[in-house]
Amino acid sequence: MTGIIVLFSSFALNLLHLALTFDPSPLQDFCVFDAKRPGCKDPRIVTANDFFYRGLHLPSNTSNPYRAGLKVAGIPDLNGQGLTLARLDFRPNGFFPPHYHPRAAEILTVLEGSLEVGFVTSYPNYKHYPKVLNKGDVFVIPVGLVHYQRGVGRVNTVVLSALNSQNPGIVEVAAGIFGAKPVIDSNYLANAFRLNKGIVERLQSKRWS
Amino acid sequence: MTGIIVLFSSFALNLLHLALTFDPSPLQDFCVFDAKRPGCKDPRIVTANDFFYRGLHLPSNTSNPYRAGLKVAGIPDLNGQGLTLARLDFRPNGFFPPHYHPRAAEILTVLEGSLEVGFVTSYPNYKHYPKVLNKGDVFVIPVGLVHYQRGVGRVNTVVLSALNSQNPGIVEVAAGIFGAKPVIDSNYLANAFRLNKGIVERLQSKRWS
Amino acid sequence: MTGIIVLFSSFALNLLHLALTFDPSPLQDFCVFDAKRPGCKDPRIVTANDFFYRGLHLPSNTSNPYRAGLKVAGIPDLNGQGLTLARLDFRPNGFFPPHYHPRAAEILTVLEGSLEVGFVTSYPNYKHYPKVLNKGDVFVIPVGLVHYQRGVGRVNTVVLSALNSQNPGIVEVAAGIFGAKPVIDSNYLANAFRLNKGIVERLQSKRWS
Amino acid sequence: MTGIIVLFSSFALNLLHLALTFDPSPLQDFCVFDAKRPGCKDPRIVTANDFFYRGLHLPSNTSNPYRAGLKVAGIPDLNGQGLTLARLDFRPNGFFPPHYHPRAAEILTVLEGSLEVGFVTSYPNYKHYPKVLNKGDVFVIPVGLVHYQRGVGRVNTVVLSALNSQNPGIVEVAAGIFGAKPVIDSNYLANAFRLNKGIVERLQSKRWS
Amino acid sequence: MTGIIVLFSSFALNLLHLALTFDPSPLQDFCVFDAKRPGCKDPRIVTANDFFYRGLHLPSNTSNPYRAGLKVAGIPDLNGQGLTLARLDFRPNGFFPPHYHPRAAEILTVLEGSLEVGFVTSYPNYKHYPKVLNKGDVFVIPVGLVHYQRGVGRVNTVVLSALNSQNPGIVEVAAGIFGAKPVIDSNYLANAFRLNKGIVERLQSKRWS
Amino acid sequence: MTGIIVLFSSFALNLLHLALTFDPSPLQDFCVFDAKRPGCKDPRIVTANDFFYRGLHLPSNTSNPYRAGLKVAGIPDLNGQGLTLARLDFRPNGFFPPHYHPRAAEILTVLEGSLEVGFVTSYPNYKHYPKVLNKGDVFVIPVGLVHYQRGVGRVNTVVLSALNSQNPGIVEVAAGIFGAKPVIDSNYLANAFRLNKGIVERLQSKRWS
Repeated sequence: MTGIIVLFSSFALNLLHLALTFDPSPLQDFCVFDAKRPGCKDPRIVTANDFFYRGLHLPSNTSNPYRAGLKVAGIPDLNGQGLTLARLDFRPNGFFPPHYHPRAAEILTVLEGSLEVGFVTSYPNYKHYPKVLNKGDVFVIPVGLVHYQRGVGRVNTVVLSALNSQNPGIVEVAAGIFGAKPVIDSNYLANAFRLNKGIVERLQSKRWS
Repeated sequence: MTGIIVLFSSFALNLLHLALTFDPSPLQDFCVFDAKRPGCKDPRIVTANDFFYRGLHLPSNTSNPYRAGLKVAGIPDLNGQGLTLARLDFRPNGFFPPHYHPRAAEILTVLEGSLEVGFVTSYPNYKHYPKVLNKGDVFVIPVGLVHYQRGVGRVNTVVLSALNSQNPGIVEVAAGIFGAKPVIDSNYLANAFRLNKGIVERLQSKRWS
Repeated sequence: MTGIIVLFSSFALNLLHLALTFDPSPLQDFCVFDAKRPGCKDPRIVTANDFFYRGLHLPSNTSNPYRAGLKVAGIPDLNGQGLTLARLDFRPNGFFPPHYHPRAAEILTVLEGSLEVGFVTSYPNYKHYPKVLNKGDVFVIPVGLVHYQRGVGRVNTVVLSALNSQNPGIVEVAAGIFGAKPVIDSNYLANAFRLNKGIVERLQSKRWS
Repeated sequence: MTGIIVLFSSFALNLLHLALTFDPSPLQDFCVFDAKRPGCKDPRIVTANDFFYRGLHLPSNTSNPYRAGLKVAGIPDLNGQGLTLARLDFRPNGFFPPHYHPRAAEILTVLEGSLEVGFVTSYPNYKHYPKVLNKGDVFVIPVGLVHYQRGVGRVNTVVLSALNSQNPGIVEVAAGIFGAKPVIDSNYLANAFRLNKGIVERLQSKRWS
Repeated sequence: MTGIIVLFSSFALNLLHLALTFDPSPLQDFCVFDAKRPGCKDPRIVTANDFFYRGLHLPSNTSNPYRAGLKVAGIPDLNGQGLTLARLDFRPNGFFPPHYHPRAAEILTVLEGSLEVGFVTSYPNYKHYPKVLNKGDVFVIPVGLVHYQRGVGRVNTVVLSALNSQNPGIVEVAAGIFGAKPVIDSNYLANAFRLNKGIVERLQSKRWS
Repeated sequence: MTGIIVLFSSFALNLLHLALTFDPSPLQDFCVFDAKRPGCKDPRIVTANDFFYRGLHLPSNTSNPYRAGLKVAGIPDLNGQGLTLARLDFRPNGFFPPHYHPRAAEILTVLEGSLEVGFVTSYPNYKHYPKVLNKGDVFVIPVGLVHYQRGVGRVNTVVLSALNSQNPGIVEVAAGIFGAKPVIDSNYLANAFRLNKGIVERLQSKRWS
């Protein structure tokens, strides 16, 4: 069983070798990552391809237990530009488990099919805002809040997602808690989740990512 | 004896009654604009529809001289979330004139057709980065740089654009200069653009916006 | 001739009447909340008590199922100063369930007793950093990451916590997901958490907050 | 069963009705202060005079014990533009006492005469960087550091100063400490400044501002 | 013919080898660029000359087609201090062509002569705010907006300009569009500027920078 | 006589070898300083000890003329997390001289004993906000304002201080002015502080740090 690692596998690509570690307004037109030395590539050797990604029209891989996939437009020059773009694919009933992005808000557009999406506000209200989106519908997930997505039609669902950070980060809640390595004490989790310890330990024995 | 109070007396003037609006990290989950009074809508009356926009699958109006159109996902809660989403439509040879966004970088995805896009860096190089994008291609426009878009295929071109500000702003260069109201002195513009004055005045007599 | 005004006409909609609240560097010495009208209290009526809180030496209420309590130093002038201070109390085996602060890092100091604390990094590693803290020990929780705390000694544990936002926000993960109102679909949660639907529905029937 | 709502119940208090003012990147072209109501003046009634100040060629008033004066270009629209401009005048040996700007760096240009300027770094080095500036010389004072200025030629000195905040703030150190109202305990100040108490009390009896 | 490259030639000096690529509040007193290795110069070898520039009283070179010149106070330690200072010189009718600064607001002070200045707001209004400034007059250009300057008296005009970024950037609009390298398609530009293609190609054949 | 250098000696520890020189929101979960090369330590070799400090329950050294001491929790990973924590100790009548933190607000909690604390607002009011704090009392010092602390009970006073910057900086006013190296001209200081020159020179001859 492949697990969530397949699901989000391209999300971590932007993160490698960041020369600039923050998102605010830049001091130059752009900074294209230089693989050979720290800092930005000499602008004289930057080409239009450094701002370009090909293949967002092709589905991501949904052959995994979630029946859902994600593909990130991995453009090196996004250094300092504060944007990430991704394509999400869902087979019918495919889903992304509850997760949040610690460093970005997200805006979703349904290109094909139907998507059930929802987010939950913070303590103390934990108000749930669910919505079924169809083709052409747009929905915003506020920064840092837990949300979920599920393909709800009879056909595949295709979604475009934009996030306002070069590296939004993902915390998939169940994987982060039950799949943490080393494991979190099962007595503690049993109390916190109000599950019996056996169930917690079974969850912890699964492969989450 | 007068003392230092005389010395610095005008320094405190600017401070009164400021009420500004900015993009950085918010102090609450979200802020939905309240049409009836200043401030955010009471969260208890906020619904999922406050995060929702319908209709991005429908083309924008391209019955204009540019043979191109734009439709923005107008979601009130984008307050403080730092994101704008837009759909761009181009008939064959439809185009957006050179423009820039003073407050955002932009990431473009071609959904249908083909798009010629390019941006130009700042002084002193003014290096031009052009690219023809086809379905599934993605391209980034760095913040604040002049860029253009043109439908280059035989069919209509559909593009999704995400920008990382709630209000990116648009400055369409020719309209901003030749369509400024009141007009900018034509002798000056003739010198600056190296055009003869008659041409400048003809440009200024047109309707730009 | 219509002109560019058609082209961009929806772009200006977001701009109206924004009134947001943020954490960055202030434009005045301080801003004490004025309960009677929008804006800051007139500095002439601000007193030292507006910067003052009494009672952090007294334990918070731990007579609850978590056997743990929290007390926040509620100082109005924290407006714009970007700091929150809290006291955490734990009876033996008292605990805070896994949670995160969307808008702040946290630094903990153990004043009495012993505390088990840990945080988990984001996707894809979900690395768990646990630590048992004793009197005088200090530990940092990076911004936005899931973490937990548990009193592990035989006596009560007292902790001082500082967070670098005026309103850090709390998302207690189990409560946010199983206690969300209205409920999140139990079939979806059963799949996402790899629990059977009956267990999910039992969790959802409990009172989480 | 009480649940988590008890646990975190005081965390939400800080959030109410914030209305703060900051310097970062704006969400509109400009915001001209509206004297009649909260918020920005309607752009349709903004004129070029809202961006304009007349009189920086005229000396400020130096008929004071410091033999120095300051005049700030008081332009309402500086709201959100993050800049302050000032003219400084010094008669021979006129001076500004040691002070700092909590919210801005400063860049000085000598237009006439000669200026002695210096700043001191922070703990633990307190390194002093003095410089005598003549006509056409430029000097930078890093943000938040104590600095001083003195006219050192035989003629009047005229200086233009630019600071990168709409409201840099001034703390004139001696006035802030010996002229604080109500007074700071003289025993404490005597110890801290290593002066005898009589001298401290004499300083405190003077008019500082 | 020299062209605009002369005009703005000192503006690009600050840009080289930036160790810090952003403008926000620093974590140390100052950072003086170290030419020999990445990072800041060891504070023990920093001297007052690292904060100093000589020569702003001397005119910049106006022997160019624009009859105008610019000289920037090139101070290494401006790293992280968020300020640029420049002197602008105009012979009678000398001018700077329409341009904008993507990363800074600007405040101008006329030291000698008379200056016509104006800026244009963004879409959709493109409102033009012109003003003739005389000695001692001050004017603010909001961040990111197109503006122009022209010496309008019978004598030379001298202006001091302060901008709130270490590297404001310049985009001179005509040069950026007609002088972009490689050239932008002339059919496109003819349509966008409503000029015939021959005129566009003639403009493109000129030396702009 | 040891002087203030003992007092604040641990405050400068965080400052060494900063790879990240700013405080805003990070682009990764955390960045632990790597002593061996520029940049962050490889997350695979980061351990919980990188977030941990031991010993805040032990008093700092108060055997100095101020009868007060300070101990900073020196945690390398605070890089990018924007927090500093410190313990302050005061023997009866021990004190910290007037100082300010150029880059942080501060929140104080009295753990033992009694503390007199006060801060002074900026020009032109220099309003003094004094307060005597007892065990469990909390007080906020706004960013950049001069403040002081003094143990006022018959027993030792212990205070916990949190500041919202990784490197808040300290400027101890008397030391910064009278202990600056090289010395500031004593005639100037005599005028500015309204002391006679002999007293100023005597102050300058003392060891301040």
